[in-house]
Amino acid sequence: MTSIKVSGETASSEILIGEHISNFKKHLPDGKTIVITDKNVNKLYGRYWIDLPSIVIGRGEGNKTLETAQLIINKLLELNADRSTFILGIGGGIVCDVAGFTASIFMRGLRFGFISTTLLSQVDASIGGKNGVNFKGFKNIVGVFNQPEFVICDPTVLKTLERKEISNGLAEIVKHALIADAEMFGFLEKNSNNLLDLDESVVQKLVTRSVEIKSGIVNRDE
Amino acid sequence: MTSIKVSGETASSEILIGEHISNFKKHLPDGKTIVITDKNVNKLYGRYWIDLPSIVIGRGEGNKTLETAQLIINKLLELNADRSTFILGIGGGIVCDVAGFTASIFMRGLRFGFISTTLLSQVDASIGGKNGVNFKGFKNIVGVFNQPEFVICDPTVLKTLERKEISNGLAEIVKHALIADAEMFGFLEKNSNNLLDLDESVVQKLVTRSVEIKSGIVNRDE
Repeated sequence: MTSIKVSGETASSEILIGEHISNFKKHLPDGKTIVITDKNVNKLYGRYWIDLPSIVIGRGEGNKTLETAQLIINKLLELNADRSTFILGIGGGIVCDVAGFTASIFMRGLRFGFISTTLLSQVDASIGGKNGVNFKGFKNIVGVFNQPEFVICDPTVLKTLERKEISNGLAEIVKHALIADAEMFGFLEKNSNNLLDLDESVVQKLVTRSVEIKSGIVNRDE
Repeated sequence: MTSIKVSGETASSEILIGEHISNFKKHLPDGKTIVITDKNVNKLYGRYWIDLPSIVIGRGEGNKTLETAQLIINKLLELNADRSTFILGIGGGIVCDVAGFTASIFMRGLRFGFISTTLLSQVDASIGGKNGVNFKGFKNIVGVFNQPEFVICDPTVLKTLERKEISNGLAEIVKHALIADAEMFGFLEKNSNNLLDLDESVVQKLVTRSVEIKSGIVNRDE
């Protein structure tokens, strides 16, 4: 496992690349944790958090709304969440965006972390502390900057992704390589098939380098 | 005018006690400002911001909701607010709570300031960076910590308050005096009638001391 510390303006995140999803509990603080995930991820991996209270939202961009945030707030109240509750978002960019935003506004901010289950969210969406939802067709118009305490990037969960989702992540990795790293670009050229086949060591190397590049940008931008 | 700097965790506010409401424009940054106020305050003082775009919400605790925040977001979009827009909340605790919260989540946070028009918000609600709204009967369950850049506390606008609103503010001032300042408590005992009559120098002295006490608490708490 590789651990990268990403510093934002107000806090920092630990990005844990290569950690297996089944080990997530050792990264949780003491006390109550509530999982926020989507139907698909819950079906595929819900066995790992069967003993935790969970809130399951719909899949897709259409669920990245203030209405979904309100549904989650309702459920948090039903589950007796309080200021000490930890929120764990498990999914791709949409789940993590909505979970991070809701955690940030519930009781003026709960602690939260993510397990990123798509290649795109592992290399992009979960890094940089941008949370938010869409509003009447305006993308990400409502949100906050707030860093998750940790982001677990498990290469093995990428195996359940559709090919298109791998391509979306790969495009972002290529972008990072083009912006910042000629050596990485050469490695990509040689290993693009291994990446598409989700060779674990290739995925881990590329996700790590991508997070380093993106977090360097985050450090400079904030 | 007395200026007190209140430091929070992420930013600091300037509390301007004794500044007249008619002078607010000299405290605004360059660029577009949008006013958020309530019907009553707009009727009484709207002549001062007749040339600025404004969003007018209803009066009272029943308007301190996520629905009102959504109405404001809608209006901000209609008024073409962007990341450089400054939000000025003008009113009591409810207006400032809703305005501060909406400013904090619109486009991941716009800059904002307040003109506090009630005694209670001058000595309490606007200090400390707590913003938020109620949700299904739960008070302040949705919100963020975020400091306004400035809070203008004009003693002359208190003259349009109902007696009950003066008493609410006075109760808070007494609380601050009891917690922290025996000398202030003596001054209060001697001058409570002058305060109820809104003698400007007495109001200014008591609001200043109250803000100092409250902001000391803020500095220690955050």
